[in-house]
Order: sequence, then structure tokens, then C-alpha cells
Amino acid sequence: MVSAGIGGRVEGLHPVRAALAAGRVRVLTVERSRRDLDDLVAEARAVGASVELVDDVRPLAQTGSPQGVVAKARPIAFAPLESLLDPGEDAGPPAVVVLDHLEDPRNVGAIARSALGAGMTGLVIPRRRAAPITATTFKAAAGSLEHLPVSSVSSVAAVVRRVADAGLWTVGLDPTAPTSLMGLECLTQPVALFVGAEGKGLGRLVRERLDLLVSIPMDNRALSLNAGVATALACFEVMRMRAAEPVDRTGR
Amino acid sequence: MVSAGIGGRVEGLHPVRAALAAGRVRVLTVERSRRDLDDLVAEARAVGASVELVDDVRPLAQTGSPQGVVAKARPIAFAPLESLLDPGEDAGPPAVVVLDHLEDPRNVGAIARSALGAGMTGLVIPRRRAAPITATTFKAAAGSLEHLPVSSVSSVAAVVRRVADAGLWTVGLDPTAPTSLMGLECLTQPVALFVGAEGKGLGRLVRERLDLLVSIPMDNRALSLNAGVATALACFEVMRMRAAEPVDRTGR
Repeated sequence: MVSAGIGGRVEGLHPVRAALAAGRVRVLTVERSRRDLDDLVAEARAVGASVELVDDVRPLAQTGSPQGVVAKARPIAFAPLESLLDPGEDAGPPAVVVLDHLEDPRNVGAIARSALGAGMTGLVIPRRRAAPITATTFKAAAGSLEHLPVSSVSSVAAVVRRVADAGLWTVGLDPTAPTSLMGLECLTQPVALFVGAEGKGLGRLVRERLDLLVSIPMDNRALSLNAGVATALACFEVMRMRAAEPVDRTGR
Repeated sequence: MVSAGIGGRVEGLHPVRAALAAGRVRVLTVERSRRDLDDLVAEARAVGASVELVDDVRPLAQTGSPQGVVAKARPIAFAPLESLLDPGEDAGPPAVVVLDHLEDPRNVGAIARSALGAGMTGLVIPRRRAAPITATTFKAAAGSLEHLPVSSVSSVAAVVRRVADAGLWTVGLDPTAPTSLMGLECLTQPVALFVGAEGKGLGRLVRERLDLLVSIPMDNRALSLNAGVATALACFEVMRMRAAEPVDRTGR
């Protein structure tokens, strides 16, 4: 079965507003009492979307807090992995985030939001045994999935090879690694950051194939970091290193 | 009414394990089928806690995923604000995180986890019109609230003055501020980071009283960052600046 893409259902203020701005919304459903959303309704009508007014959107919603608005939208197609690995000269060296079977859709959405904020090229997620990209993911992503390309792959271990063959450094986040992520020179070059599942970490085969494993130095009272927070710190370290140093586009 | 403190109920593997290690657990309730938690049960018995075995802990739980284990525990007392502002010579210059009426207990817990990871001195939260510290907060905090002191205050605007009087820089996170948080010299000195509520940001009076407002530079496609992620980036920037530069303990 070929997936039709992501974002067919969008819920909550920021995500719906972003989907509308992207021209994807086909049916907008808004609570009658939410007069503060009149601009959203006007915008939807202006782009030819259907508008439905209801008393309560919650029975229609997949997320816990739809904030009075849900939408059906034209899905966003997955991006081919190759387009993330070679985003074109003007885009600067690629920096992709690869998720190794994360289970919490909120973590995946939060990571998309942070990755876009830090200027990453795109997100790679496995098709199976991982949180699917749902309305909950879009809610946590707060509009960022309208802009950040997402690739869907069958094997993360295979992605390590494809990414390395394309000339990117492959770097895994591992709380037990002695090498620090901070100040890592290769972050200024084409790079892929691999993030392990909550609790379980990176898969064995993925770990073995990576160029290096790095950790985020922490206070000695601390136990661990949330997967989404660790990934955000890594993405923004890429941004910081690239702003601080002349970029080497020649790859590894 | 004087609050009895926080953490009287703890749920989930990491939080319960951390509360046990802290010697706080009085009653441990575990699902009979979870033989993988035998070590937890043995540890509880060793410290004199009662152990109850049940078929399903979920009806007893306040969080959505108690992972087979909940506990009643001796609450952790709030710390006086003064103890956070002057943690003692050996602790290095204080760095506190002040939350201006955040509403999502998960965000508060995630911030505690990141703040401890980055070596912050403590967390300050308002008593009213803010997410109370519940079992959900402790779940997201993943054990960090056993170690990170928390102060409860009646007015965040009053805290700005008390913190400034104690010689700390008062720095607010504001996505619209032209000044960048990154590389900010005052982070190496005693500092308090003020974080605004999700969506609403910092209160007007708080903003007016702060020494400076700073933002986290983002990619121009991005809309915003999650409050928990922005705070984590700020806390780790404090850690990075302090590791990179000789510390000035003389304050401002």
C-alpha cells in the first residue's frame, strides 16, 4: 500500500492556520461560538474551502484539545529521501534528522517544530513500528510540518548507508557516548542526526553503522533528557556551529 | 493555606524509581503481572514501604500511562526562594528558571528535567493561575523533581525585584526580542531566566521589570518554538557559556 501522505486531518489553531496558509484546507469545521475565529472562516471561504459550523468540534477531533477548530485537508506527499540529501546549492549543506522508531506522536511533532526552527533540511521516519504522523503529531508540530519535508522509509539501518553514500556524516545521539555533541566540527558539513526511541535508544544495527555516537553533557545530578529536547539541542548546535564557522560544503 | 509540598503521588517507572531512591515512598502499588518490577518491590520493602499488588493500576492512576506502578510518597517541601538565589559558594553562581504561569503540567515537568540536566539551581513557579505540580508533572520530569529545588511564589512580578535585589540578572525569553540569547555574556553570572506561558508569553509587568528580553534565533520558515524546548535551549546555553568562559561571581 502506498501512503497518501500526511496531514489529511489538522486540528487546533496553529496547525489549521498553517494548513490554510499552505492552501491545503478543503473543509474547515469551526465551533459556532468562536467568533474570534471569524478571520479563519473568511480565509477558508476566500480560498474556496467548505466551512461547517458546529456546536462542539470535540466529538469530531482526534486530539484532546482541538481549540474549537478542525480541518480536512489535501495531504502533504512524502518527500523522496534523495531530495533531502541534496537540497540544492542555495540551501547550504544538508542536515537531516532521522527518527529510529519513536513511539510518541507528540515527540515526533515537537521534533519537527524544533528541526524547522533550527533550519534542518528534513525529517526521516520509518514506515512501520513507529508513531504514525497523525493529527496529534500535527498539533505538536504547530504548523512546522507544512514547511519541513518528511521522508518515509522502510529501514532506518538502510538509511544510514544511503545517507553515508550521499556524503553526509552519520551521527547518533546516545546518552552513554563519551564524545560530546557540543562543538563537533562535522556538524558544519553535510550531516544526518539519528535519534533513538524513547527509553530504548538507537537500534543495534543502526548504531554499528553510524560514523559516530555523541552525547549531550549534563549535570551529574541529572538522569536523562527527553528525546525531543535532546534532538532540539542537537539541531540548534548544528545551527550554532554553522553560524560560527565557515561552511565546508565538500562533505566528508 | 500552606501547601504540603509536591510529589505526594508518583506514577510511572522513572518517577517511582527516583522517589524510591530519594527514600520518599510510603506505599508502592504494582501490577501483579509485572515480574520485571520485582527489584522495585524488593527495594520498597527494604526501606520499609508498604507494597500492594493489584491487577491493574490504571484505575488508581492520575496519569494516562502509569506503566504498571504508582506510589504514595512523603511530599517534597517547597524551597524558600532565598535558598535558590544563594546556593552557596561551592555551587557556583545561581541560575534559576522562573515560570510565568505555564498551563501545561507536561511542559513544567519537561522544563524541570531539562533544567536539572543543564545544572540549573532551581525552579520558581507561581502558586495560582498556573499548572499545579501533579503526578503528570512528575511523570514528564522523569525523576528530576527529586533533585531540583522548587520554590512556590505568589507573584512572578514580585520575584523579578527579589531576584534582582539578590544580584541576579533577570532575563526574559521573548520570541519578538531583537537581542539573541546565544552567547549572552551575563549568562556566566548569577542569572534568572523568565519563561512566559504557552501562547501568551510573559506578563506585562514582568516584561517591564526585567533587565533584558532575548530571543532564540530561528530559521525564517519557522513560526515558534515549544515553551519547553525554548527553555531547554536557554538552560543549556547557560551551561555552555559557563563552561566556555571564566565565571564572574561578583554579580552585576
